[in-house]
Amino acid sequence: MANGISLSTAETITSAAFAKAAELGLKPLTVVVLDAGGHTIILKRQDGSSNLRPEIATGKANGALAVGTGTRWLNANAETRPHFVNALNGVAGGNIIPVPGGVLVRNEAGDTLGAVGITGDTSENDETCAVAGIETVGLIPDCG
Amino acid sequence: MANGISLSTAETITSAAFAKAAELGLKPLTVVVLDAGGHTIILKRQDGSSNLRPEIATGKANGALAVGTGTRWLNANAETRPHFVNALNGVAGGNIIPVPGGVLVRNEAGDTLGAVGITGDTSENDETCAVAGIETVGLIPDCG
Amino acid sequence: MANGISLSTAETITSAAFAKAAELGLKPLTVVVLDAGGHTIILKRQDGSSNLRPEIATGKANGALAVGTGTRWLNANAETRPHFVNALNGVAGGNIIPVPGGVLVRNEAGDTLGAVGITGDTSENDETCAVAGIETVGLIPDCG
Amino acid sequence: MANGISLSTAETITSAAFAKAAELGLKPLTVVVLDAGGHTIILKRQDGSSNLRPEIATGKANGALAVGTGTRWLNANAETRPHFVNALNGVAGGNIIPVPGGVLVRNEAGDTLGAVGITGDTSENDETCAVAGIETVGLIPDCG
Repeated sequence: MANGISLSTAETITSAAFAKAAELGLKPLTVVVLDAGGHTIILKRQDGSSNLRPEIATGKANGALAVGTGTRWLNANAETRPHFVNALNGVAGGNIIPVPGGVLVRNEAGDTLGAVGITGDTSENDETCAVAGIETVGLIPDCG
Repeated sequence: MANGISLSTAETITSAAFAKAAELGLKPLTVVVLDAGGHTIILKRQDGSSNLRPEIATGKANGALAVGTGTRWLNANAETRPHFVNALNGVAGGNIIPVPGGVLVRNEAGDTLGAVGITGDTSENDETCAVAGIETVGLIPDCG
Repeated sequence: MANGISLSTAETITSAAFAKAAELGLKPLTVVVLDAGGHTIILKRQDGSSNLRPEIATGKANGALAVGTGTRWLNANAETRPHFVNALNGVAGGNIIPVPGGVLVRNEAGDTLGAVGITGDTSENDETCAVAGIETVGLIPDCG
Repeated sequence: MANGISLSTAETITSAAFAKAAELGLKPLTVVVLDAGGHTIILKRQDGSSNLRPEIATGKANGALAVGTGTRWLNANAETRPHFVNALNGVAGGNIIPVPGGVLVRNEAGDTLGAVGITGDTSENDETCAVAGIETVGLIPDCG
């Protein structure tokens, strides 16, 4: 996995996201890290995080990778161009969750290395934890 | 493929669309050319164009072929008759993206030969590149 | 999650499975632990484990939960009653992989707590690692 | 797309595959190059190549990426473990074609950079053209 996100790096992103959530006193989260092609490297669901959280977290990260920026951009489009975001989910097989909390992971050169998706608290808090995780490993979050 | 779009013609459409995008300084694009039956002749995704762009470009071209005019018409309908466009995507299996950038390719006689779909920059800029590509080969764009 | 598998326990199962794989010199693995309802608690894909491995690992664990025993039983049925296993995948929406490596997790009382799915090496080696992971936390593997 | 397959490289792979096909006098082909995540970089269908060829070529390349080796391996498994290959297509959403002609693209270090899928002539001839394309750009084909 040349120049991508290793499992070891993904572990650190996940731990840092959970640490930020603990610091903020958030509800139980589910965190996923996808590689640049949208395939899962790691997923962790905290005790008490509900059944569909893995699919929601993955849908946020998928959404970021689909359009090349964080899901904050999709959330804005869902308000101004709902038909576009609905149709996007059609060609995506329904696997996009267009609300904040899906954050693209870039390197210094701007290349997309993957995406982090978090769900469980408010979308804004979910996103804050994703950013914390990505910054901990020295990579650059793109929230959209 | 008598009287259809040959691979050679589709190559020229694609190259001309990319040339227009370079001239306008657009973001990385994905371009697809479908034949009259909706089957891909050529698809090219420029470096840095995100993961779902092939499906989005194809969804635009599919939409144009589905209703017999460019996706500008579908975009207008999505605002005035969202239930129609939603239902259309139901019978289409979700493969229609109803925003500008899906352009029908006609000959002088008005026959539909195929469609071009482009995504990556604003919908309007995407459409401009599709029109440039189609006109380069002496065919007639129908934007809807 | 009273009496279920906590994230902490699932972490230990996963680490023990990877340790067994390292000891045996296996190829890169993907490991998933599902709860009793079939929802992911943890998934980890080692560097170099291919794209569809998360779905394959999950399909094995799903299969074990679907029929209440490990996927070794499904593998045997696939040979003697292929129509049954094919039909099973129909009602399962295609999410069952009927080869060894999906192992049910039981407690002393025989209750099903979840399932582990592993893929990446031979099915037999995948299963060996799942068993090692489950036994490390003092629970009982059911291979089928 | 750091260290991946650029559109320019994918163009060369495609042209070299078509050149090999012309040299061998093969039927019209469809060629696709996918990136490591399974997303299309380029697809070209020669005049006379039938309707579903884009999906078949893509299904071969997808299959190679799914399991981390060329589809010759899947073809062999389809004979010895048909239930595994059938189930694999279930978790893959039906997008795998398990016959030769899906070839993984590796670099010198062994990293997977993407996959080439070709269809139109015999599976063996399709594969020969994929290998020719990959070797032309100095990368390493893995047929399975």
